[in-house]
Order: sequence, then structure tokens, then C-alpha cells
Amino acid sequence: MNAPLLSSSAPIQPKYVQMATRMAALIESGAFLPGQRLPSVRDTAAQEGVSISTAMQAFRWLEDKGLAHAKPKAGYFVRKQRQRIALPLVGQPPPHSVPLAPRSRSDVLDREGRNLMAVNLTGYRPRDSQLFDEDRLRVAVARAARLHRRTLVDYSNETGTQALQNAVAQRALHLGCSLRGEDVVITASCMQAISLCLMAVTRPGDVVALESPTFLGYLDLLESLNLRVVEIPSHPRTGLSLPALQLALDTQPIKAVLAVPTLSNPLGAIMPLTEKRALVRLLAQHGLPLIEDVVFNDLLASDERRRAVKAFDQDGTVMVCGSFSKTISPGVRLGWVEAGRWKEQVTTLKRVQGAATNEVMEHALADLLTQSAYESQMRRLSATMKARLQEARRWVSAHFPKGTRVSDPPAGYTLWVELPVAVDSMRLFEVAGGEGISFIPGSLFSATGRYAHCLRLSFSGAWGEAEKKALSRLGQMAQALLEGR
Amino acid sequence: MNAPLLSSSAPIQPKYVQMATRMAALIESGAFLPGQRLPSVRDTAAQEGVSISTAMQAFRWLEDKGLAHAKPKAGYFVRKQRQRIALPLVGQPPPHSVPLAPRSRSDVLDREGRNLMAVNLTGYRPRDSQLFDEDRLRVAVARAARLHRRTLVDYSNETGTQALQNAVAQRALHLGCSLRGEDVVITASCMQAISLCLMAVTRPGDVVALESPTFLGYLDLLESLNLRVVEIPSHPRTGLSLPALQLALDTQPIKAVLAVPTLSNPLGAIMPLTEKRALVRLLAQHGLPLIEDVVFNDLLASDERRRAVKAFDQDGTVMVCGSFSKTISPGVRLGWVEAGRWKEQVTTLKRVQGAATNEVMEHALADLLTQSAYESQMRRLSATMKARLQEARRWVSAHFPKGTRVSDPPAGYTLWVELPVAVDSMRLFEVAGGEGISFIPGSLFSATGRYAHCLRLSFSGAWGEAEKKALSRLGQMAQALLEGR
Repeated sequence: MNAPLLSSSAPIQPKYVQMATRMAALIESGAFLPGQRLPSVRDTAAQEGVSISTAMQAFRWLEDKGLAHAKPKAGYFVRKQRQRIALPLVGQPPPHSVPLAPRSRSDVLDREGRNLMAVNLTGYRPRDSQLFDEDRLRVAVARAARLHRRTLVDYSNETGTQALQNAVAQRALHLGCSLRGEDVVITASCMQAISLCLMAVTRPGDVVALESPTFLGYLDLLESLNLRVVEIPSHPRTGLSLPALQLALDTQPIKAVLAVPTLSNPLGAIMPLTEKRALVRLLAQHGLPLIEDVVFNDLLASDERRRAVKAFDQDGTVMVCGSFSKTISPGVRLGWVEAGRWKEQVTTLKRVQGAATNEVMEHALADLLTQSAYESQMRRLSATMKARLQEARRWVSAHFPKGTRVSDPPAGYTLWVELPVAVDSMRLFEVAGGEGISFIPGSLFSATGRYAHCLRLSFSGAWGEAEKKALSRLGQMAQALLEGR
Repeated sequence: MNAPLLSSSAPIQPKYVQMATRMAALIESGAFLPGQRLPSVRDTAAQEGVSISTAMQAFRWLEDKGLAHAKPKAGYFVRKQRQRIALPLVGQPPPHSVPLAPRSRSDVLDREGRNLMAVNLTGYRPRDSQLFDEDRLRVAVARAARLHRRTLVDYSNETGTQALQNAVAQRALHLGCSLRGEDVVITASCMQAISLCLMAVTRPGDVVALESPTFLGYLDLLESLNLRVVEIPSHPRTGLSLPALQLALDTQPIKAVLAVPTLSNPLGAIMPLTEKRALVRLLAQHGLPLIEDVVFNDLLASDERRRAVKAFDQDGTVMVCGSFSKTISPGVRLGWVEAGRWKEQVTTLKRVQGAATNEVMEHALADLLTQSAYESQMRRLSATMKARLQEARRWVSAHFPKGTRVSDPPAGYTLWVELPVAVDSMRLFEVAGGEGISFIPGSLFSATGRYAHCLRLSFSGAWGEAEKKALSRLGQMAQALLEGR
């Protein structure tokens, strides 16, 4: 999976990547064995003639690639060969576009999944309060209310508070994007940003291309805008298939592509950089916008992996949308968009549809984003979730029926589980609901009835004995369904 | 204007209204002369055998009707005959529907009117900080952040925070509406509430009926949703013409009516209660929704005058939308809707389009709304604006060309000025801009190019010598345009 990152068309790599690449080659050649301790950061720095922090970056790169792992106070070790759990197959959606049937997907969740479940693996409330820092938020809000009280008695800026626009642009540098603060439009959420983008570039009846499987919220949104969908096959590691997209663009009247190229939802795939670059080129040729959702990018520590498609955009083809609901906290309720060539349309839509945002909250968020703690917080959050996902993956593998496949995302909050095809996950949802366990059935991630044997498990809520037990129970229930019991 | 309020079909009037009605008859009969002191509140209470507070209510009713006015420490006096300033004629828009031309209206404002003008009478920023209480707001926000910090790290409720839903329902009692808190959906603004309502009940190409002149923001919104418009004539005092609406309903494929029945924008008209009741009946017969905007109702102290059309709704025909931007503060950035029969559609649209609202701000607003100070604050705000509007009206009348007509709203922030037809207010806008004076040209309040000789003046900003001087200058410029200079 590393090859595309090092392709010859990429710019010259920073020093630490060059170092890390050499170390990776040594590990892959067997020069360092699984479980073996790697040279210390200090020794490596001295030997390579670089600073400690550069050497640290190299080790973190190895960690991100799954080649090494840190043990507190003991240094870095070569990661042992992972237990082989097969990746999902995903498969081939139909090549034509389809309309979205009214209320076809999320009712079931609204009514049952979100509420009152003892073990809620839907990704909706409640969230794990360990992951986000309530106090830091509260202080930022109180401070913003004090410092910016004038904004409480005035209409807000159309595009957002300058401080937040600039903070967003600054953060986007970490995704390889050079945005101007003044081009950033602040919204109530990433979904609202995407909604405004879709309204700016489509009319009812138009066709939008999506990854398959795709985030169920996209399907609900597209349905509300009376749009049609064409689903593009996606790989569990490398995401959207460009050849398939090319074919769809040649045969369907597609008006926009909506995708999560980095840590896709639900698969957790990351498009290789070469493909991210090729995607922009392809769409620019067709004069079509990419609506890129970058809500998860900050969860990746490596600059290469988290780089956005927008980083390769030269003529405003990419409308990049984000929020900080997955990083700072879901309760902030602010998102943003840099809409490239469609900036004016998006700004107008935000204004005329009354999608106002609160300036005090914007100032609070700007404050949090520019605190030096943000980067280390991300690292901590990311490490917590990574460990949790790996543990959950092992539990699923150990307790679910033979033949079950599980995604292997390098970060994020969710796993995509492919059960043997005979298991209907909607039926499993009903049975599990009876025991107070909820998750999202796979069929909600497709407009064409695919993935009926799949499910998405989210671990953004609590993670403890109850959840592990719930996973074993889910496995037993799936086994029972498989055996027709 | 009082007759409809006392029509026989109305419910039995409260004691104070009965008292006030008798006193009004005495005033109108000439038994009390203009400028004469009325009996004291104490004496009146004793004579009528009612409490002091009931007598006070009666006097306030007279004040609201423009029949009496209070002098501090001296009591109530019969108001002197107002200077006769003619009301606008308004006139007859075409009976057929029209599409909205792209970007036809508000560009000019965006670019010029809102910004950097020495005297800004557009109604956009900056606002008069005297009108709203910064400190009370700041304290409420800081308290909400402290008490409800948990909400900062969680996704918000779909429909809104229960505390705010209930506070809104409680306030709606003052508009004569019995709403259930659980049926109230919290939004980012009244315009967003209206936007969601329109999306719930129309499809692109559908026809919506509006008052004429109408709020320019509605036209921008309808344009963004690709809706067609039919404009219904409105009277400067009694608002929407029901016979004209009836005719439109019989001849046009109207899908919804969008109106401000109480303190319409820009005219400041109030539909009489009998007509409010008849409006619901008419629309219920046609099975069509009324989208009712009640943002201004709280600015009226009289329970009769501020009663919403929704108060007469028996089967969920009325989708009532409000916010507290005109009462508590524009910076709160929260609105609400009770969408009657379309509640589920509106809730779904809010969710899927990512129109999330911030729970901390919701708690702060709930706090402010349930403080006992709210009612007295409204009274103060309302009295300030009423005096200001009356003074502004006199200035316009004194300084604008002969034949100028001015609306006479009983509350609110704006005046609608009808210049002699030969004056092009867009031209006046340009000339005035050169001297740092901005307002909104009348043609922006119509989809059919009407009102080119009108303008809307807003007094929600500062009000002092600079503004008065600006009004005289505007009058001189209009006179010059009239004379072809």
C-alpha cells in the first residue's frame, strides 16, 4: 500500500519520510524481525544527523503505516504480523443511476437504533466523554462570550467570523491545502456544507456519483434534494475506483461526485495520493465538481495520508467540506466549506436560506483550533481509537461466524463487517434490538439494496466489557441466523 | 381600525378591554379632548371596581391604539390628532405567477448597502446596542456553557433542546397559540424555519403566494428554491387582501401562502383578527399550508393585536415560524417552527440537511425567554421603537417631496416610503450612496418590478442627529431627482 505514496511523480519527500522509507524497507526485508526493538529515537537522530523531532516524525510515520508500535518508556518495536482477518469484498453496484425511494433508509434508525439501547454501536449518541474535553470547550465558550459579547447583539457575518475562517485555512495546511480564509464559508455542520454544495451544483433529477458503500446520511440528503444516485465501486483500502468512475462519467449524466477520499465512511479507505491527484484531473477534464468530505482527515497523523484531494486542485474543481465534530467535539455544531468556483453560489444559498451560524461559538472554535494542544489532542484521540478499533476487530473476528470479513481502517470510529451472504443484517438488527444492542444495518449504505449481509459498528461511544460482550452476542445471533435457528 | 377587534364573532373580551373600549368611545366622541388629561389610573380602578393592574392594562390598550399617551409622573393624556401623513397606496400586482430572475434583487445591497455607510438605514448591521442587552446575553451564555457543558461534547437533539422547545411554546401562549413543546423544531433562524417549510410543501416550479410588497429575503429564498411567485395586494394597515387571495387560489396552482400577518415587512400592517381567522378557514378549505412568520408579534403589547393566525388553526394548516432576532437579539441566531401537519417532513429535512443548532445557545435562549424581565424588556424596546418611528415619520413628511406617502406601523423597525412616481429610488440609492447614506430601494420588495418609486427605511441602527440629517438630505435628493436635476 505504500508504493503510490512514493511514486516518482510525487514531490520530493521531506527528510523524515526519506528516513522512514529506508527503515520500512529494512523491516519489510526482514532485517528487523517482528517484535524486535528498533534503534532508539536519539541514536537514530544522531546517526542520520537530524533533530530528535525529525527522527520522531519518522518513527510516527512507521507507526501510521502499521510497521512499528511504541511501548511507553521502552521505545519503538517492529509490529508483529497482524492476525489475518479478511477484508470485505464489497462488490459491484449497478452501472446506472437510480432515484432514492422516499424514507427508505433511516426511519428504522430514527425510531429504534439511536435511543435507549444499552449498547449503542450506531455512532449516534451517546458519545464517549473520554474522547473529548468538556472543560476546555466550556472555558472557550465562556471566554468567547466575554470577549465577543458584541457579536451576541448583531447579525453575524455572511460567510463566518474571520478568526474562524483563518483558523480553518490554517488547519487546512495540514491537509496540504492552501486556502484563503476569506474563501472559507462557515456552516452549521459538514452535512450542511455538503447540502449547500449540492444545491449550488445540481437541480432536482440530476445524477450524483457516490462511493459504494456510502455514508447513509448522504443518501438521506440526496433524497431530500430529489437527486439520483450512481454508486461507484470502492476498495476497502484504496477507496473509490477511478476506472469505474471514468466509465460512469462516460455513460451517465453525472453532475457532481460526492466522496470521502480519506477514511471513507463506512469502509475507512484512503485513496492513494496518485489517485487523489488523478481524481482531480479527471473531474477537471469533465468540468464537474468533486464535493470532498474531509471530516476524518485530521485523525491521521501522517501528512501524506491525510492530504486532501483539494491539495491537488488548481482551478477550483473541488468543493472541500469539513467540520470538527469528529475531532474537537460533536457539540460544537460548526462546519465549513471552501467551494472553489462555486463560492458565490454557496455563500448566497447560506444567506438566503437563513443558515446562520453563531459568532460566539465560532470564536470559541477558532480559539480551540489555534491552541497548541490541538495537534497532541488529535494524536491522543487517534491512538485511543486506533487501539480500540483493532481490539474490536479481533473480537469480531473471534466471535462472528466463519467467513466474516472486517474492514481495517487506520483511524476513525467505525468497522464495516461483511457477514456470510445468508445473514440478513436487518433481521440481526431486530434480534439484537431485543437485547438492547444497536448498530446500523448495511443496506442503509446503498441506494440499490446492496449490503444486506453487512453492518457498520461504531465505537465512538463507550468501550468496555459491555461492548465486548455485545459483540460476542452479535456473533452468536448472526451464527444462529446463519443456521436458520 | 378597532371594529374588527370587537366583532360579535370574537370571544368575550377581558374586563380591561371592555373598559378601554368604553373610554375609547368617549375619546372618539369628543368627550375627552386632544391633549386633555384622562382620569388617573387609581381613580378609574376605584370607579370601575377593578384592580390597579387591570386599570393599567386598559390605559395601555388605549396607548397601543394611539388614543392616549403617558407622561411620566403626570398620568395619561388624550393624544393630539396626528399630523396627517398619507398612507402608501401600494396598488395592484399582476394576477398571474412569475418566476424569479437569478440574482435580480439583493446583489446591489450585498455589495453596497450593507457596508461602511455612515448612515445605514438598510436594517442590516450595525444595530443599535441600546436596544439589546449585551450583558444579560453574555451571562446567559456563560451560565449555559457551565450548566450544560455535557451538550458541548454530544450531538444535539434533532428537534432542539427540550428547555427551549418548552420556552417557545410558553411564549407562543402570548400569541394565543397552544403549542406543545415537543412539536416545536428549533432552527438557526426564522428564515431557515421558513426555508425548511417551503422545502417540505413545494417542489421546484411550484407557485407560492406572497404579500405585495413583501420581505425581500423571501424573494431571494424562493429564487434559491426555484419557486414561482404570485403577489397578493396588501393594505398598509390591514395587510393581505383576502378577496385577492381567494381569487388567486381559484385561478393559480398555488401550493403555499407565505406571509407576515402581524407587522408585515415592509408595510407594518396587521391583519384584523376576523381576517386572521378567515385566512385559516380559507386555506384549510383548499388544503394548503400557511407559512406564518411571527418574528415581530412580540413587539406588540396588546394581546389582541399580537395574536397569531396560528391561534385559529384547528387542523395543522398553519406552519408558524419565529425567532428572537427582533426581540432578544439578532446575534442569538436561533429560530423555531411548529409545522402543523408537516412536522415530520420539516424535522427530517432539518436533520438530513445538517441544519444543526447549538445546544448551549439554546439553553441560554431558554433562560432569557423565561426570565420575568422579558415582558418588560419588550415593552421598553417597543416603546423606544414606536417613538423613534413616529419621529422619523414626521421627519420624512417634513423633508421629502410633496406627495410622499409613509406607512404608519404601530411597532417594528421600518417605514415604507412611497415617493412621487417620477422618482426612481434605485437612482436615489446610488446618489445617496455617494454621501454615505444607505436604505433599501422599493423594487427589491417585488418580483414584478413594482415599487420603483418606493424605499424602505430601517431605524434599528443608531437614531440621532446624523440620521435625521440623512433623512433631510434624502428628501432633498429625491426632490432634485423629481425636478430632473
